[in-house]
Amino acid sequence: MPHRPPRRIEHRPPVLRADAIAAFLEAPLVGDAGREIRGPAALDHAREDQVSFVSDGKYAAAAAQSRAGLLLVQEGLNVEAASAAIVRVPEARIAFQRVLGLFFPSCDRLEPGIHETAAVAEDASVHPTATVGPHCTIESGASIGAGAVLRSHVFVGQGSSVGADGYIYPHVSIRGGVSIGARCLLHSGVVIGSDGFGFVRVGDRHEKVAQIGGVRIGDDVEIGANSCIDRGALGDTVIGSGTKIDNLVHIAHNVQIGRNVLLIAQVGLSGSVTIGDDAVLAGQAAVAGHLHVGRGAQIGGRSGVMENIPEGLRVFGFPARNLRDFIRLQRSIEDLPELARKLQGLEAEVARLRQEQRPIDADAPADRTAD
Amino acid sequence: MPHRPPRRIEHRPPVLRADAIAAFLEAPLVGDAGREIRGPAALDHAREDQVSFVSDGKYAAAAAQSRAGLLLVQEGLNVEAASAAIVRVPEARIAFQRVLGLFFPSCDRLEPGIHETAAVAEDASVHPTATVGPHCTIESGASIGAGAVLRSHVFVGQGSSVGADGYIYPHVSIRGGVSIGARCLLHSGVVIGSDGFGFVRVGDRHEKVAQIGGVRIGDDVEIGANSCIDRGALGDTVIGSGTKIDNLVHIAHNVQIGRNVLLIAQVGLSGSVTIGDDAVLAGQAAVAGHLHVGRGAQIGGRSGVMENIPEGLRVFGFPARNLRDFIRLQRSIEDLPELARKLQGLEAEVARLRQEQRPIDADAPADRTAD
Amino acid sequence: MPHRPPRRIEHRPPVLRADAIAAFLEAPLVGDAGREIRGPAALDHAREDQVSFVSDGKYAAAAAQSRAGLLLVQEGLNVEAASAAIVRVPEARIAFQRVLGLFFPSCDRLEPGIHETAAVAEDASVHPTATVGPHCTIESGASIGAGAVLRSHVFVGQGSSVGADGYIYPHVSIRGGVSIGARCLLHSGVVIGSDGFGFVRVGDRHEKVAQIGGVRIGDDVEIGANSCIDRGALGDTVIGSGTKIDNLVHIAHNVQIGRNVLLIAQVGLSGSVTIGDDAVLAGQAAVAGHLHVGRGAQIGGRSGVMENIPEGLRVFGFPARNLRDFIRLQRSIEDLPELARKLQGLEAEVARLRQEQRPIDADAPADRTAD
Repeated sequence: MPHRPPRRIEHRPPVLRADAIAAFLEAPLVGDAGREIRGPAALDHAREDQVSFVSDGKYAAAAAQSRAGLLLVQEGLNVEAASAAIVRVPEARIAFQRVLGLFFPSCDRLEPGIHETAAVAEDASVHPTATVGPHCTIESGASIGAGAVLRSHVFVGQGSSVGADGYIYPHVSIRGGVSIGARCLLHSGVVIGSDGFGFVRVGDRHEKVAQIGGVRIGDDVEIGANSCIDRGALGDTVIGSGTKIDNLVHIAHNVQIGRNVLLIAQVGLSGSVTIGDDAVLAGQAAVAGHLHVGRGAQIGGRSGVMENIPEGLRVFGFPARNLRDFIRLQRSIEDLPELARKLQGLEAEVARLRQEQRPIDADAPADRTAD
Repeated sequence: MPHRPPRRIEHRPPVLRADAIAAFLEAPLVGDAGREIRGPAALDHAREDQVSFVSDGKYAAAAAQSRAGLLLVQEGLNVEAASAAIVRVPEARIAFQRVLGLFFPSCDRLEPGIHETAAVAEDASVHPTATVGPHCTIESGASIGAGAVLRSHVFVGQGSSVGADGYIYPHVSIRGGVSIGARCLLHSGVVIGSDGFGFVRVGDRHEKVAQIGGVRIGDDVEIGANSCIDRGALGDTVIGSGTKIDNLVHIAHNVQIGRNVLLIAQVGLSGSVTIGDDAVLAGQAAVAGHLHVGRGAQIGGRSGVMENIPEGLRVFGFPARNLRDFIRLQRSIEDLPELARKLQGLEAEVARLRQEQRPIDADAPADRTAD
Repeated sequence: MPHRPPRRIEHRPPVLRADAIAAFLEAPLVGDAGREIRGPAALDHAREDQVSFVSDGKYAAAAAQSRAGLLLVQEGLNVEAASAAIVRVPEARIAFQRVLGLFFPSCDRLEPGIHETAAVAEDASVHPTATVGPHCTIESGASIGAGAVLRSHVFVGQGSSVGADGYIYPHVSIRGGVSIGARCLLHSGVVIGSDGFGFVRVGDRHEKVAQIGGVRIGDDVEIGANSCIDRGALGDTVIGSGTKIDNLVHIAHNVQIGRNVLLIAQVGLSGSVTIGDDAVLAGQAAVAGHLHVGRGAQIGGRSGVMENIPEGLRVFGFPARNLRDFIRLQRSIEDLPELARKLQGLEAEVARLRQEQRPIDADAPADRTAD
């Protein structure tokens, strides 16, 4: 057994004062500001050095009996807590989730260094505080920033860079010509910089169009398992800072994504699509080539965007239309069988009217000539 | 060439008596019960020690001439077979497929042992009968059960376990905190235990919500190529025993899947979805967050589930509705152009009625006053 | 740092005469046929030894001032170019993209040889001009053709073959029983030969159906990142020569794809589907099991094919129907709220007619008896 993967650096959760947690949540504290908190717990199990939360009035009795040292209580709840300290927050569950992150790091830290099984080019640059795990390949001219972790089986191609404190899970492929900012988190199986899908029909075959652009990814970007981001054809495919991408997402060549965008699982973006800051695309949604989704727009799950979407608009369906129109149309569709029935009834009624009117009509000329 | 992958252990297909095959199929045998069968073959090529099948009357002539030692004949077919033994079964094609499995193992067996290129932590536990192939990484505290095979490039993270007789194809990532039961089959590129997609909007950025749960997978689960199963946020994501998952499926955090569920290719399950035993979700179907799909429910291909689905219901479409309603609605939609035409005709007819009635109306008061 | 990945072989872009480029484009040249061209450039930056293009009249002024040695000018444009040579082409942008490919190779070439970290079976065959990069595994009986490149972390299973000049990016899994033709390009994370999704319900569980077929891939096939092609159940899954497949595509067992087919991202093909030559399936489209898509048919994005598609037909929607019917139906759906409003108006009108007619009707019999 000649090789050993690097050890995890033991993580000791921090001890935080109650007022530090309140400050992190930007919320007012009542009670023992100096109470030391060592971790989170459920309301009925929490100890004097733990934090818990109350998000609903139905937990009032449990809150009254909880021994938690710090309670995060939803604003507006009439809760008498026995805890030493209380922080009132607008969304107690979310506040608790945020506090969890203070105690549990999102990624294991590993001993720095290059594993003996890794293959690293002579002229690649690996920061001394970075970890390059087993079976990684780092090609010529690539650079790995301070504190970055390549967990295992990571490929970094010619001249590409992983920024400081990046965390790259196993089996990620970063091809050449890719730059990744600081603190990015890439989950297993992510592929960055694969060729865009570009062909020209020449005679009876498809001729490949050179894909010679790259990929630029900002800071604090997270990319979910087995998602793919193609390189640009000529320029770069760009992912803005703070953008978060879920699993199995497809991003084609030349796509430009703004900051803090959310792309939920299995979304597909066609070539040259642009997405404004803060937009959200829900699961399995897709955008056709060269279209623009405006800043802050929200695209519903499974929607298919077939035209530009203005800033801030919420759209749904295929083809995607604004939510109000979608709901109205959807109701019309639901009512279709009823509408067909009504039409049938009306046809019968009109036929009867015609039937009944006919004799009168027949007489009418006579009547009229009689006038 | 310093390294060699492990050799395959030569598989010699078993010799099975005709009555053993009949017993496996739980079907009655007629003829030579002791006939030794060494493998399957097509009807017209089968030898005296081979098994074949007849699923349709059109093969009656071929069956009469077949030299097969054993024939699986569809019940109700009037077939005179020349074969030494006959087993009558309700579904001959399916029975034959099942018998194939007796002769051909679903996975190659490899020499046990740890390949010299693998990186295995000192305190990981690898059963002596397990195979750890080239370029595998097994981290601290992980355990690999008896007879399990990690084919090549498999990553098993901190403290995770692969049960007895598991078979893990190349490039599978099993992150820390994952337990996998016995006899599970994971195809290439599967990712288990990636972070769920959880963020809280804080000011102008998305703050990551800690994903500190794990994944628990039962026995006899099969997972298709490049499918992803996220870890739970707090608790575990759970996949029940006997469940089979196809390629490129996305399973989000906290999802709970029952036993013997089928998820066909490219299905997407949002966070905290629960799926009852024996449910079937066809290709590209999706379920929105926190919904429940009842036991034995069947979700049609490309359907989008937007509300809870009761036990046993068959649904289709987007939003998914029960199959009868879907078909009725679909017909209404198909009839729409016809309906629009009818409406137009009716409008014209009513306009004519109005036109024709007007003179009468005009006279009517006179007539009436004349009464 | 004991291992080094193989070096890239320096690529020196060729020097091409203007008439050679014209000949490649099969288009007429005017001007300096012998002008030496060393690369492409944008219209306003091009030097005397570079080629650029004019695809629109709005660039006429720029073209008149461009110093480019060779200009590709869209046919029909009235452009006075100052360049030494001009080639007139039907599609200048596409012609330029094609010329790019003459100067930039689509893949890096690496030093041939087997990397010291690779694990290669004794009886595998690797051509001396092939490159087997770091952390590759090549199992028993596999063969790697002349000039082929396995970049890094590539798995080639028992007896499978990669044809001459194939280029396989990192983390590709080629299971046993797969043959890949010449000049194929497989992007990272591709899985070829995973088991098809085949089960038989036996009592209360799903019994696996043996998947003992293989996969046959022709020449000049490109397969996008993280796409999956399952092996056949009994026979082979087949991908015809010249077919191009985008990212995250699912191809189930026994699928038969013709030549020069295009499958765009996230397409899903169910088991035993057959696709004729030159067909195009746009993004996220799907085809239900055992159906046939005819030669040259075009399936729109997100369409769901539920019946056989004749040769050359363009279809759209779910269920997919021919484009004209789809557009007509789509318009009818858009008009639905209007149609419902019209129906309501008509109901009111008919009610009024009835109301007005009633007195007449009441009198009518009297009138008639009076006749």
